[in-house]
Amino acid sequence: MNVGFIGLGRMGRPMASNMARKGFRLVVNDINPDAVKELEELQASSAPTAAEVAKKSDVIITMLPDGPVVREVVGGADGIIANAPKGALIMDMSTVEPGTTDDLAAQAKAKGLRYVDAPVGRLAAHADRGESLFMVGAELEDFELVKPMLEAMGTTIYHCGGVGTGTRTKLVNNFLAVASCQFNAEALALSQGLGLNLESTLDVIYGTTAMNGQLKINWPDKVLAGDTSPGFTIDLAHKDLSLIMQAANTAKVPMPMAAAAREMFSAARARGFGAQDFSAMVDAHCDLANIEKPRLKK
Amino acid sequence: MNVGFIGLGRMGRPMASNMARKGFRLVVNDINPDAVKELEELQASSAPTAAEVAKKSDVIITMLPDGPVVREVVGGADGIIANAPKGALIMDMSTVEPGTTDDLAAQAKAKGLRYVDAPVGRLAAHADRGESLFMVGAELEDFELVKPMLEAMGTTIYHCGGVGTGTRTKLVNNFLAVASCQFNAEALALSQGLGLNLESTLDVIYGTTAMNGQLKINWPDKVLAGDTSPGFTIDLAHKDLSLIMQAANTAKVPMPMAAAAREMFSAARARGFGAQDFSAMVDAHCDLANIEKPRLKK
Amino acid sequence: MNVGFIGLGRMGRPMASNMARKGFRLVVNDINPDAVKELEELQASSAPTAAEVAKKSDVIITMLPDGPVVREVVGGADGIIANAPKGALIMDMSTVEPGTTDDLAAQAKAKGLRYVDAPVGRLAAHADRGESLFMVGAELEDFELVKPMLEAMGTTIYHCGGVGTGTRTKLVNNFLAVASCQFNAEALALSQGLGLNLESTLDVIYGTTAMNGQLKINWPDKVLAGDTSPGFTIDLAHKDLSLIMQAANTAKVPMPMAAAAREMFSAARARGFGAQDFSAMVDAHCDLANIEKPRLKK
Amino acid sequence: MNVGFIGLGRMGRPMASNMARKGFRLVVNDINPDAVKELEELQASSAPTAAEVAKKSDVIITMLPDGPVVREVVGGADGIIANAPKGALIMDMSTVEPGTTDDLAAQAKAKGLRYVDAPVGRLAAHADRGESLFMVGAELEDFELVKPMLEAMGTTIYHCGGVGTGTRTKLVNNFLAVASCQFNAEALALSQGLGLNLESTLDVIYGTTAMNGQLKINWPDKVLAGDTSPGFTIDLAHKDLSLIMQAANTAKVPMPMAAAAREMFSAARARGFGAQDFSAMVDAHCDLANIEKPRLKK
Ligand SMILES: NC(=O)c1ccc[n+]([C@@H]2O[C@H](COP(=O)([O-])OP(=O)(O)OC[C@H]3O[C@@H](n4cnc5c(N)ncnc54)[C@H](O)[C@@H]3O)[C@@H](O)[C@H]2O)c1
Ligand SMILES: NC(=O)c1ccc[n+]([C@@H]2O[C@H](COP(=O)([O-])OP(=O)(O)OC[C@H]3O[C@@H](n4cnc5c(N)ncnc54)[C@H](O)[C@@H]3O)[C@@H](O)[C@H]2O)c1
Ligand SMILES: NC(=O)c1ccc[n+]([C@@H]2O[C@H](COP(=O)([O-])OP(=O)(O)OC[C@H]3O[C@@H](n4cnc5c(N)ncnc54)[C@H](O)[C@@H]3O)[C@@H](O)[C@H]2O)c1
Ligand SMILES: NC(=O)c1ccc[n+]([C@@H]2O[C@H](COP(=O)([O-])OP(=O)(O)OC[C@H]3O[C@@H](n4cnc5c(N)ncnc54)[C@H](O)[C@@H]3O)[C@@H](O)[C@H]2O)c1
Repeated sequence: MNVGFIGLGRMGRPMASNMARKGFRLVVNDINPDAVKELEELQASSAPTAAEVAKKSDVIITMLPDGPVVREVVGGADGIIANAPKGALIMDMSTVEPGTTDDLAAQAKAKGLRYVDAPVGRLAAHADRGESLFMVGAELEDFELVKPMLEAMGTTIYHCGGVGTGTRTKLVNNFLAVASCQFNAEALALSQGLGLNLESTLDVIYGTTAMNGQLKINWPDKVLAGDTSPGFTIDLAHKDLSLIMQAANTAKVPMPMAAAAREMFSAARARGFGAQDFSAMVDAHCDLANIEKPRLKK
Repeated sequence: MNVGFIGLGRMGRPMASNMARKGFRLVVNDINPDAVKELEELQASSAPTAAEVAKKSDVIITMLPDGPVVREVVGGADGIIANAPKGALIMDMSTVEPGTTDDLAAQAKAKGLRYVDAPVGRLAAHADRGESLFMVGAELEDFELVKPMLEAMGTTIYHCGGVGTGTRTKLVNNFLAVASCQFNAEALALSQGLGLNLESTLDVIYGTTAMNGQLKINWPDKVLAGDTSPGFTIDLAHKDLSLIMQAANTAKVPMPMAAAAREMFSAARARGFGAQDFSAMVDAHCDLANIEKPRLKK
Repeated sequence: MNVGFIGLGRMGRPMASNMARKGFRLVVNDINPDAVKELEELQASSAPTAAEVAKKSDVIITMLPDGPVVREVVGGADGIIANAPKGALIMDMSTVEPGTTDDLAAQAKAKGLRYVDAPVGRLAAHADRGESLFMVGAELEDFELVKPMLEAMGTTIYHCGGVGTGTRTKLVNNFLAVASCQFNAEALALSQGLGLNLESTLDVIYGTTAMNGQLKINWPDKVLAGDTSPGFTIDLAHKDLSLIMQAANTAKVPMPMAAAAREMFSAARARGFGAQDFSAMVDAHCDLANIEKPRLKK
Repeated sequence: MNVGFIGLGRMGRPMASNMARKGFRLVVNDINPDAVKELEELQASSAPTAAEVAKKSDVIITMLPDGPVVREVVGGADGIIANAPKGALIMDMSTVEPGTTDDLAAQAKAKGLRYVDAPVGRLAAHADRGESLFMVGAELEDFELVKPMLEAMGTTIYHCGGVGTGTRTKLVNNFLAVASCQFNAEALALSQGLGLNLESTLDVIYGTTAMNGQLKINWPDKVLAGDTSPGFTIDLAHKDLSLIMQAANTAKVPMPMAAAAREMFSAARARGFGAQDFSAMVDAHCDLANIEKPRLKK
């Protein structure tokens, strides 16, 4: 089985190297010759263009910077889709917008090719150590086909559903992982601004639902189970947030995310959710955005 | 030792009852007679006014709705401070703004009285079961004095520092606990809006730093230890956030907190933090707000 | 007719002085003796306390820092309401929250006293020159009574409606006047960040609806007249805002208000307003907040 | 002189028609045949492809949906740039991001072609009546060349500067014009939520700086002239905004833009701008974003 690997950057290089070390026969390509040379030293062969890689491969993996580059390399006039043999499988591991995955998957299907989106979680350091996390969108038998390759590059592999669900799950997960940096930044800036001792504050935060226990511990038995009766009402939560905004403004600690949150609690109260449990904020937001409320299947 | 307890509402009633059941001699008061009657059935005595309670007590606990009421009952012309015997201790467990605690603590001190702020974490249901969490601001020996009482009402007691640190820590903790409802609401609304399966998405989120592992797992060894070298740069994090905002807007899923976060990542890049690790967002925010950057003591 | 004037700060001093110069017999008070001295030099008499001022006055004007001080001076145990002669009129010109005005107006009425809220627009410099703007909440004949005094202090007097409407109108007007500073700051920061010439950009902005012509020129004939058929759809407006956010983020120009606006356009599209005229954003927002849509009477 | 016109949609159709009626010899194209037929009835000739139009034209105008389509039609392998005669001039009137204009202008220059960006202000209704507004980025003699054509389509033509300044000025102007819909929506929702009479409130707003007099009347003599001494301090403005947020939350009127503005006023105070005039918010924001402060040339 020949595996093409296009895009040997900060992530692609260690990931392709791990595959090569674990015996996969790779045909690699990158517009940066140094990257290619490094893989050749690991017995990978190379090809000058994506088209050449595609012609020689059963599976072609791409790990490219962004959507526009992926559209060019995979779906371009002389790209992978135009050159891959019938029945070949294309697996894009880049972080792209859903539209790119959907368009390219449709294009591939029309040419009798299979498509898998498998964006990568965790850090580049994890990729170096083969400890990446994958969120995979694929038909079942395609997932089975690529699984050994993903296992050569990572330790945690989620089959999120059909083609396109990997890209979409990555966005949801990335929002929480990335935006939580600003979320925590506002919390610690407030702690510093109020003159608190960092260690003591972290002790408390590590021990309470502040550690996002809401989503893991509380919500499965409350709103996600359809129970919106209050443990703690949205009205009282809004009152606490108002207190926080007052204290933060008095201490001149700007908290843009906290301010945005408070206005959404205000909207929830205006729309009659005030007496419900504060986990019902997801219902209030879905109601506001005309989206079906999330419920776990019984 | 006589303990006064003023404010027998949703929280105060079960908390005072737990103290009464565990043998504390209580003198209670509330403007709502039914609440008082319930405590009298548990062998607590009562008094018609806060002033009366204060005169008969060594320790006076208050669990009142908000700052203005606490200022009235504790610091009013005929309130607790005006009537408590010299050396008595006042412990306010209400959720108030720092200014209220600081003013009343100063007023108490001027009258030779001691003051402790011990706001309450977790839900009313925990208070019923005596499983509350307390964030206590007190001098050491005052903390020792009230500890047994807190243990009669709760299972987790943090001594956050001197008087006023309890109130302030509660605000920081509450911000994370309360605003995370809207934060998670936007994540699940995006998941629903992108047509993902709830169970699969939660599987992934529960397994990654989305579970706020940032603050507990990553940050102590990165920014809080003074190491801002990238695992994952603020520039790339900003790129992911831009992708998330694009996908959310395309799917008509409004995400006010995500949008606010992205602009702060943009400000961090504008201020030269782009190449640092995304944990350094706390440095960028403290720099923007003229606040000392948080570092753990070695 | 004796007029009491309590609060001779940056605003009160010039305003009281203008009244004194125009022949009003004033009894003034302030906790700052210098302020009082200045008014005495203008033939105003003074009194040591608010109570004393109240006893000697038919009309008592207050120009104090904020709500808590106004509550204390007007409604306190020994304040104005407690001491003013039956039928006297209290006019508060301070900027306070609606609750303060409503409570004190009710308290005054219970004591047979009349109440007027007349917060002040424009700058302190205008107050110096007697060119202030007043937003007055009062019964008709009380408005007639205070009008000459307001004319002694200002050039533009709006009778907004019954008691309480002055305070409320001031908040709405202040939001636009004050928040527009940040709104314009983001526009000019974007202009600078995109390397544009300031003069040329201002030329364009001054000539288009950017000068908030929306509210004054477009809306009266569109949404406020019930016509939400598109001149320019919310969908296209959202597309433009997305372009603006993309360009701003590329140029590292943070725009928090623009980002917040875009998410509300996204919510409007999610709630079926996308094909309506962009003036219908007020309908979308009132719908989201469960508030009656604003329509001009035919 | 032959003028090509590609893109005959809601805007392009009336604009091309106005040019045809005023005697311009047009060669038109659109992927929608009906649009083309309408122009043919006005003696315009047509061509099946952009390439054909380009070959026959001295000036080629495009009025297409967005950046990606413009990149395709103007810069595509067989697009306008690839087919236009040496020295021809391309004028794009579509609303695109600056990157698109810059890339295509560079591509055109490399082929000895001239490029002008002239995005369109005001509504489609204005385009129908030939009353559009143009923000033009062009070298001087190119501006002179296209001016008569713009005058055939519009009544207000701004020469903003070199190539690319039209696109950028459109973004700045559009931000103010479009986001002001949400800004005014929050103001009127607050007015409705506080139970005010719409007509009375609009009377006041139309008469004060709420009508964005800040940017046109106050700023040129204050911050833009380097005078940041207070008429009204950022501290007091922040106090008013806090009052507004408190009243809005009490009345359950969500105000996301107001909340975002307040946090930026808080950041300005934290960074030492509190005692400056509230027009200095633009300095605070440029300082926060590492951007040169805007000053009018003396
Ligand atoms: N860096 C991280 O920590 C991280 C973590 C998770 C996911 N990601 C995502 O993974 C993807 C790759 O990230 P990265 O950090 O490796 O990026 P990178 O820019 O370091 O690597 C991209 C590689 O693609 C090559 N390339 C670009 N255009 C090409 C073309 N036309 N043909 C062949 N090769 C081409 C580049 O030369 C480079 O070697 C991105 O979508 C990123 O968002 C990155
Ligand atoms: N409810 C919760 O889940 C929860 C959780 C944590 C913290 N808190 C905080 O604890 C405090 C109390 O909350 P709660 O839910 O018990 O409120 P509550 O309104 O149910 O109880 C307040 C009690 O105080 C009494 N009271 C009011 N004014 C009084 C006066 N002048 N003199 C004597 N008694 C008076 C009321 O009659 C009532 O019984 C609040 O600050 C709240 O923010 C509440
Ligand atoms: N400064 C402005 O540009 C401006 C513009 C419009 C509206 N306002 C509003 O007008 C009000 C007054 O503003 P200002 O700038 O004059 O404030 P200020 O602080 O300069 O003046 C307040 C005056 O009240 C006096 N005072 C305070 N407590 C008192 C008491 N208990 N008894 C008697 N006097 C007391 C103070 O000594 C001071 O002289 C505020 O609500 C403010 O928001 C101010
Ligand atoms: N509609 C408005 O009120 C308004 C106001 C100011 C600016 N604008 C901007 O003007 C531009 C055009 O707006 P519009 O409302 O006319 O859009 P539209 O979608 O109504 O018109 C676009 C036209 O381009 C044609 N087209 C698309 N792809 C083509 C191709 N490859 N070759 C040839 N023709 C093609 C379409 O068939 C259509 O007729 C947009 O960038 C818009 O943002 C619109």
